Amino acid sequence: MRIILVGYGVVGKGVTSILARRYEEKFTNYGFNPKIVAIADIDGAVINPRGLSPEKLEAIKQRGYPISADPEFGHPGKTALDVIESVEAEVVVEVTPVNIKNAEPALSHITKAFKTGKHVVTTNKGPLALAMPALTELAEYNKVYLRFSGTVGGGTPMLEFAKRCLAGDKILAIKGILNGTTNYILTEMSQNRISFQEALANAQKLGYAEREPSMDIDGFDTAAKVVILANWIMNRKITLKEVDRTGIRDVSLQALDEASKRGNTIKLIGSIDGDTPTVKPMEIAKTNPLCVSGVLNAITFSTEFAGEQTLVGRGAGGMETASAVLRDLLDIRHKLATKMLR
Amino acid sequence: MRIILVGYGVVGKGVTSILARRYEEKFTNYGFNPKIVAIADIDGAVINPRGLSPEKLEAIKQRGYPISADPEFGHPGKTALDVIESVEAEVVVEVTPVNIKNAEPALSHITKAFKTGKHVVTTNKGPLALAMPALTELAEYNKVYLRFSGTVGGGTPMLEFAKRCLAGDKILAIKGILNGTTNYILTEMSQNRISFQEALANAQKLGYAEREPSMDIDGFDTAAKVVILANWIMNRKITLKEVDRTGIRDVSLQALDEASKRGNTIKLIGSIDGDTPTVKPMEIAKTNPLCVSGVLNAITFSTEFAGEQTLVGRGAGGMETASAVLRDLLDIRHKLATKMLR
Repeated sequence: MRIILVGYGVVGKGVTSILARRYEEKFTNYGFNPKIVAIADIDGAVINPRGLSPEKLEAIKQRGYPISADPEFGHPGKTALDVIESVEAEVVVEVTPVNIKNAEPALSHITKAFKTGKHVVTTNKGPLALAMPALTELAEYNKVYLRFSGTVGGGTPMLEFAKRCLAGDKILAIKGILNGTTNYILTEMSQNRISFQEALANAQKLGYAEREPSMDIDGFDTAAKVVILANWIMNRKITLKEVDRTGIRDVSLQALDEASKRGNTIKLIGSIDGDTPTVKPMEIAKTNPLCVSGVLNAITFSTEFAGEQTLVGRGAGGMETASAVLRDLLDIRHKLATKMLR
Repeated sequence: MRIILVGYGVVGKGVTSILARRYEEKFTNYGFNPKIVAIADIDGAVINPRGLSPEKLEAIKQRGYPISADPEFGHPGKTALDVIESVEAEVVVEVTPVNIKNAEPALSHITKAFKTGKHVVTTNKGPLALAMPALTELAEYNKVYLRFSGTVGGGTPMLEFAKRCLAGDKILAIKGILNGTTNYILTEMSQNRISFQEALANAQKLGYAEREPSMDIDGFDTAAKVVILANWIMNRKITLKEVDRTGIRDVSLQALDEASKRGNTIKLIGSIDGDTPTVKPMEIAKTNPLCVSGVLNAITFSTEFAGEQTLVGRGAGGMETASAVLRDLLDIRHKLATKMLR
């Protein structure tokens, strides 16, 4: 399987490293033979149809150069769109930074991939939040797969769990703590009795929150994940603007204290239940399995037969999210193999 | 798919009812067309090659008669072994009560099914705890499938999660609260500051514990589940006697209090990590996602790439466990369909 990797940040590096690890085992167990034939980032690209060596790229990057500075295979200034159009490959792995305003450049990368007949694995919530119904249609029209496990839960397989582990059952409602930053802030406020502003400052110091924290604390990130869950699992054709969204800026220490007296706490919950998907701070019991602390994420599926099922894990991390990309690639590989048999 | 159901207790009834529900949907989504052609219980059997009606059987049972009293299709005194041998079917669903001493009658039912070329779905831990390596070999030899999702976690898809949602990753260790009765007892002791004996008596009153509670409180049930996890997920060829097992009889209120001062509590943990699978009371942090209360079950998989993944749900219940049987039947149906294509 020939792969074009678009984006070479922490997740991109995780992908190259994870594909190289236990190579033999992947081939034996899954018939999976991945080869990264091109990597494009903001500075340019490296292209080698015979496969790129992750160690060599890492070495170039460590010396402070962009990967496109590779003397043998580098193409400084060559754009990702150019690479997707011109390089032969089966799959594009899109791991550029999230842009919730217009989803670019990821949206163009993904549509270009579809139009040139390439499957897409992405960890980028932007295009899905803004245009998931249209994108899934476009993928179908072009007879390619679109996979995005890493967009929800990081390495925690929330999407796969719902699709694969609850076969024959019916998911009636979903509730989740889907953003580690806000969960960290609320946990700090409640455990150390500090204000929202102090907790936010701590989170920024530790690198859990961005300098411009709106994406997390105003609930956009959680809402984007709610969109993906609603489309993929609940079959709703919605986008970000259909989510009723409230962030955590107005959660007061007093409200947390009062909740605590009732044995509860306040968490930013994304939920799909009834008509309008929502994101808002909600009081939940401390004994509820959904009530996880720190940067953890958790999701509860209420099912018709099997009752409530809660899945907990880290919602971020380069290697963790890269493991979701690997699972998606294996899924596409499996789907293609099954199709060939028909 | 023609099914012989062996055992007609709470799980057996759940199975007939769950198969009848949303029938059209199952057929459309999974090409699944189940037909229960025989049910055998301790009194006899009902057999109808054209499929039995769950409503009618339930009505007979409600009037206080055994199902074999059915005037049209009943066979009083006919044994399950007889039925498995003589009735044509693709799958035997074995849901008789657990027997951890010699695994009978389930063990004979399962081996008879294999020898007559029938796949088996079971929720019965006994045969697997005592003879899992031999049983999986026998299934392979007879070219049939053996599935047992309902034996661990009830309706919570712990086995499927590990197999299907962590593809490409490697599970390094497993830790779980796998028994609801002992978890209820320890939760009661710690929250209400009562002795083990009092908590056990409460659990017995509420029907969470048996009158003869050894299976739960001495850790046999948890150990049986550890055997199944070790064989199925970690590829260890072990049986019950290889598990280092300690129950909760000696957990004192004082020990729980001391743990609590450290922000911890004591849970009966089944674990597979290093060489010897163990079951024993262990101190864990109250903030650990594994630390669930009441009758809940939870399991944490430590993975190479995706970090720690914890799954929480009810570990028992007729309908919940029946949902696991349904998933297993769909899995076998899917496997058979894929094989036909090869």
